[in-house]
Amino acid sequence: MLIVMESGATEEQIRAVTERIRALGLRPHPIPGAERTAIGITGNHGPLDPAEFEILPGVQQAIRVTKPYKLVSREVKAADSVVTVGGRPVGGKRLTIIAGPCAVESEAQTLTIAQRVREAGADLFRGGAFKPRTSPYSFQGLGLKGLQILARVREETGLPIITEAVDEDSMAMVEDYADAAQIGARNMQNFSLLKRAGKSKIPVFLKRGMSATLDEFLMAAEYVVSEGNYQLFLCERGVRTFADHTRNTLDLAIVPAVKHLSHLPILVDPSHGTGRRDKVVPLARAAIAAGADGVMVEVHHDPARALSDGPQAILPEQFAGLVRDLHALAGLVGRTHD
Amino acid sequence: MLIVMESGATEEQIRAVTERIRALGLRPHPIPGAERTAIGITGNHGPLDPAEFEILPGVQQAIRVTKPYKLVSREVKAADSVVTVGGRPVGGKRLTIIAGPCAVESEAQTLTIAQRVREAGADLFRGGAFKPRTSPYSFQGLGLKGLQILARVREETGLPIITEAVDEDSMAMVEDYADAAQIGARNMQNFSLLKRAGKSKIPVFLKRGMSATLDEFLMAAEYVVSEGNYQLFLCERGVRTFADHTRNTLDLAIVPAVKHLSHLPILVDPSHGTGRRDKVVPLARAAIAAGADGVMVEVHHDPARALSDGPQAILPEQFAGLVRDLHALAGLVGRTHD
Amino acid sequence: MLIVMESGATEEQIRAVTERIRALGLRPHPIPGAERTAIGITGNHGPLDPAEFEILPGVQQAIRVTKPYKLVSREVKAADSVVTVGGRPVGGKRLTIIAGPCAVESEAQTLTIAQRVREAGADLFRGGAFKPRTSPYSFQGLGLKGLQILARVREETGLPIITEAVDEDSMAMVEDYADAAQIGARNMQNFSLLKRAGKSKIPVFLKRGMSATLDEFLMAAEYVVSEGNYQLFLCERGVRTFADHTRNTLDLAIVPAVKHLSHLPILVDPSHGTGRRDKVVPLARAAIAAGADGVMVEVHHDPARALSDGPQAILPEQFAGLVRDLHALAGLVGRTHD
Amino acid sequence: MLIVMESGATEEQIRAVTERIRALGLRPHPIPGAERTAIGITGNHGPLDPAEFEILPGVQQAIRVTKPYKLVSREVKAADSVVTVGGRPVGGKRLTIIAGPCAVESEAQTLTIAQRVREAGADLFRGGAFKPRTSPYSFQGLGLKGLQILARVREETGLPIITEAVDEDSMAMVEDYADAAQIGARNMQNFSLLKRAGKSKIPVFLKRGMSATLDEFLMAAEYVVSEGNYQLFLCERGVRTFADHTRNTLDLAIVPAVKHLSHLPILVDPSHGTGRRDKVVPLARAAIAAGADGVMVEVHHDPARALSDGPQAILPEQFAGLVRDLHALAGLVGRTHD
Repeated sequence: MLIVMESGATEEQIRAVTERIRALGLRPHPIPGAERTAIGITGNHGPLDPAEFEILPGVQQAIRVTKPYKLVSREVKAADSVVTVGGRPVGGKRLTIIAGPCAVESEAQTLTIAQRVREAGADLFRGGAFKPRTSPYSFQGLGLKGLQILARVREETGLPIITEAVDEDSMAMVEDYADAAQIGARNMQNFSLLKRAGKSKIPVFLKRGMSATLDEFLMAAEYVVSEGNYQLFLCERGVRTFADHTRNTLDLAIVPAVKHLSHLPILVDPSHGTGRRDKVVPLARAAIAAGADGVMVEVHHDPARALSDGPQAILPEQFAGLVRDLHALAGLVGRTHD
Repeated sequence: MLIVMESGATEEQIRAVTERIRALGLRPHPIPGAERTAIGITGNHGPLDPAEFEILPGVQQAIRVTKPYKLVSREVKAADSVVTVGGRPVGGKRLTIIAGPCAVESEAQTLTIAQRVREAGADLFRGGAFKPRTSPYSFQGLGLKGLQILARVREETGLPIITEAVDEDSMAMVEDYADAAQIGARNMQNFSLLKRAGKSKIPVFLKRGMSATLDEFLMAAEYVVSEGNYQLFLCERGVRTFADHTRNTLDLAIVPAVKHLSHLPILVDPSHGTGRRDKVVPLARAAIAAGADGVMVEVHHDPARALSDGPQAILPEQFAGLVRDLHALAGLVGRTHD
Repeated sequence: MLIVMESGATEEQIRAVTERIRALGLRPHPIPGAERTAIGITGNHGPLDPAEFEILPGVQQAIRVTKPYKLVSREVKAADSVVTVGGRPVGGKRLTIIAGPCAVESEAQTLTIAQRVREAGADLFRGGAFKPRTSPYSFQGLGLKGLQILARVREETGLPIITEAVDEDSMAMVEDYADAAQIGARNMQNFSLLKRAGKSKIPVFLKRGMSATLDEFLMAAEYVVSEGNYQLFLCERGVRTFADHTRNTLDLAIVPAVKHLSHLPILVDPSHGTGRRDKVVPLARAAIAAGADGVMVEVHHDPARALSDGPQAILPEQFAGLVRDLHALAGLVGRTHD
Repeated sequence: MLIVMESGATEEQIRAVTERIRALGLRPHPIPGAERTAIGITGNHGPLDPAEFEILPGVQQAIRVTKPYKLVSREVKAADSVVTVGGRPVGGKRLTIIAGPCAVESEAQTLTIAQRVREAGADLFRGGAFKPRTSPYSFQGLGLKGLQILARVREETGLPIITEAVDEDSMAMVEDYADAAQIGARNMQNFSLLKRAGKSKIPVFLKRGMSATLDEFLMAAEYVVSEGNYQLFLCERGVRTFADHTRNTLDLAIVPAVKHLSHLPILVDPSHGTGRRDKVVPLARAAIAAGADGVMVEVHHDPARALSDGPQAILPEQFAGLVRDLHALAGLVGRTHD
């Protein structure tokens, strides 16, 4: 933490700040300048709140110079983490492709899609049994029945299952049936759910919130890990901006940014990230080219009849072409796919 | 819903769209144009998803022309709703001023502040017992003990209590102790919590999410009301933008926008909305001048030692001045304050 | 400037940074910490670019601790500036109300509106002769003929004239006919135009860019003042965000923020700031309540036939009501209106 | 254009709207519905302003259903445009790599970098002689002398030159010395400059504004083309959002979006788009993977001493590696590189 004093701060104000720093058990380091004085702080073991200093008289600004998260940072663990979902690695050298419908609608639909994406080369299967929907009048998912369908699909296809939990009750059910639990963008700062996920026995797939900064994203991850669950992988899924040619603005620069600061794997969801079928394939390619550990894409064999998010789902044959593209790309970015 | 066909759409594509509309039990209204055809849809009882049509061949865009919410809209109820919190009206002609500390820290602190804000003219008392915090290492609130302190403060001061619930467990406790339950910005799309709030026996105070559109805000409100709880009032608390001179960008234009579309009361929180003590008073005034039904401000008698959000809390004496300003303003905007 | 080294930075890297600081004629102030070293810099006369240091090995971040503008800051001039436009003060105690049509369409239209707004109590008259329009096919203004109309309107009504210049040629013409030159949001970082405005003999009214930070806004102002024109006043007119209930999001918190940092007057334009007629009056009131030195509103006697921005213009009778409201508000915020 | 009437609109209001439509020489197409009436409009030759209708009594909303640009759209010209810069094609099958320093600092610096990027495989050379800078106190470029250096560099290396024009005067000079003129993000809506560029004899490279929507970007392009200059190519360079891990948020989804709507080539600038050297290479790869016609990257042989934008410049050896990556990628996305 660095305290910047106002240019007209008095000696007394400066002394009051240094005394407060000492009172907190920390060490002040005054740096007198031509125009103003700054005071560095050292000796803190956790993050300090700029608020505690900005309210003192004569203080212009308090600037945080160390990051507020620890366990998810590369400073604590330098090597890339690899999470294991249903026996398959996520992170490390291997590219991970997750595919499936937005929502589980029926056993026939789910199984049809699962067989098609497995043949095409998907590594994990996704499908929503609990759907967070903006409108109370929209289809909210099949719930427990959806989870049971997913479990049967795993038996049939061998594909590990990843599905969303929207609260503590659904998290308990997801744990019983799935190989990994997704926490969606709208719940990225549902701290009760994050803490519950941190006690889960299965890996957690945490999506970035619609207007989450990088720090907030990693702090949400820290909530999960600090409860003891290190089996965590992240997902960029687009952020909310003024731009209106896509549903969200996919922020691919966060991929190298996360990799720089954290050891956790990060994937990209170009389906929600763009909301438009014709943008999914180019942006999925772009995600891998930017260094993502994988992608998650929505696939539906009959998107015109999908109950949820139809316009962003691609067809199984488009997915097959995408997998071929991504496997070809893998080599170029130092990854393998088998 | 209006379907806009591409300029090169074939007769067959247009026919396929009209057939699909009929298959859904709706009526198509083709509007042939010089360059392209549009097709109006009528006969739907609830909202349609543009997605269902945008995926059909030859369709350029599907545009929603009716609003997706009903119960919270003025079309269903033209007159302003008035919510009753602990016997006091929120909404209607009367201005509501909610004040108190960000977090309940101790009985002495809470009682001191409550007495000061009651004397100054506060209508309701706020204070957080459950605090959603970005970092798992920050103070998370006193929980049940905090609620018990709030209940004692009500006994002492007579001020009705409003406090935040962050999940279903805390909602149950808040119902037992408080006069109204707040749902915070980070939980605006925590749909499980919204549904639970919709079954609550106490009024709900719903804050706008950090990047929520007006439609999403009213849809979140619709979740609560559609479960049966009509005792709902809203709060603008700033949205996330690129601007960095305040913590959030307070969007006061949403006040007349909500009033135009909905019968629900809307208040403004300039403390979170700016995150800076010296902006709270001018923006609180501005909120009332823009037509808000009231404000919620954070007050602390010793902000330099506050455990949470100190730099946005104003002092009791500043609050007293603000109340005088707002009462003077009330007359100018056709409101009363007693 | 404060340089924060990485936690694993070597002694050699730290020395290289301090040497580079000295090579630039500045003084380094190392602050060793438990985890990492920070290095303060003093002795610079102008702003430093963080870039110059962030590229050195071992540097994590360079943080600017002094503001990059000088002449517009309160540190250079503590007292509020008052600009004189056609003999009338802008800034200081007196409220300024600017009104008129978006565009000058004809002498009859312009004169009709000017007479109505003068009667209602406007202080200055606005009207666009040069219109920056998103589409090359939209009405671009009457140009020189529009300026001549404005000059005749001033003769008839006595109202000083403010009108927009969009490039150096139009600036020269505006100087000949008007009392103040407006620089629009789209040109806030048209540095050639800013420098030309800085050499102008008439006052300049600078509008905030659609996505300008407070620092960029004040730096644009610094461009004008650094060329010698101290007759400058500012305007908040809404910024671009995801919110879609108004055309822009009016950021009223920038009013106290500018007042805190700068001596320049700041007005608010609720017409462009909301783009919706029914939001203009409540947000104009809110602007004054937030401490703005005045407002600029678009008024048209026949908005249904206005050639430009009709839906945000209010009628002369609405304007008259607004002026009464603002004059009543003036007293509450320590201002006068005559 | 589709007019949506309010649910309580009277017959008279509906008739007034249809009459106004006819008065404008257009044809109304009423679509009566269960809840409300909509009215389609056909027969217009250019874009209509929703404003003209939204101000009529009983109108809820006017929705534009055709795009406001023509000449740059695929509807007018279906095939991809190829622009020729100094004899080299931009657009079409071939990948274009533009490289060079942010600013021309000296002949030695410029020539050194040009030789290095030519050897590495750059197609065009960039370097700023006129620099738009946020601060009036920052280095503003060498001006005419910079252009003369660029011309000598072209003689020495054979690389065509692209450089920015910031106003009409500099545009005239750039035309004399360079092979293509860049219009920067801050000037994307400097309509005087766009019109001047539309009369230029050299190709124009138009960068997206910091908060420009896709429509505004294409309308700015329409300004240039409507003046007669069809030699235009576009550049995505990041937009302004709340995200703070990069200087801007690179919006790669605009690449397929532009390709869908327009025949103009579009490149990506990952240097300004991220502002961070370590993000340039991954995002440049991602841009090509997303379908961009090329990239523009800043290269400096001594970024620690660069006078402008040092921290986003990559070293010549990093650039050489990037060219190899992009050439390898080219095949995967159906492009050539020689």
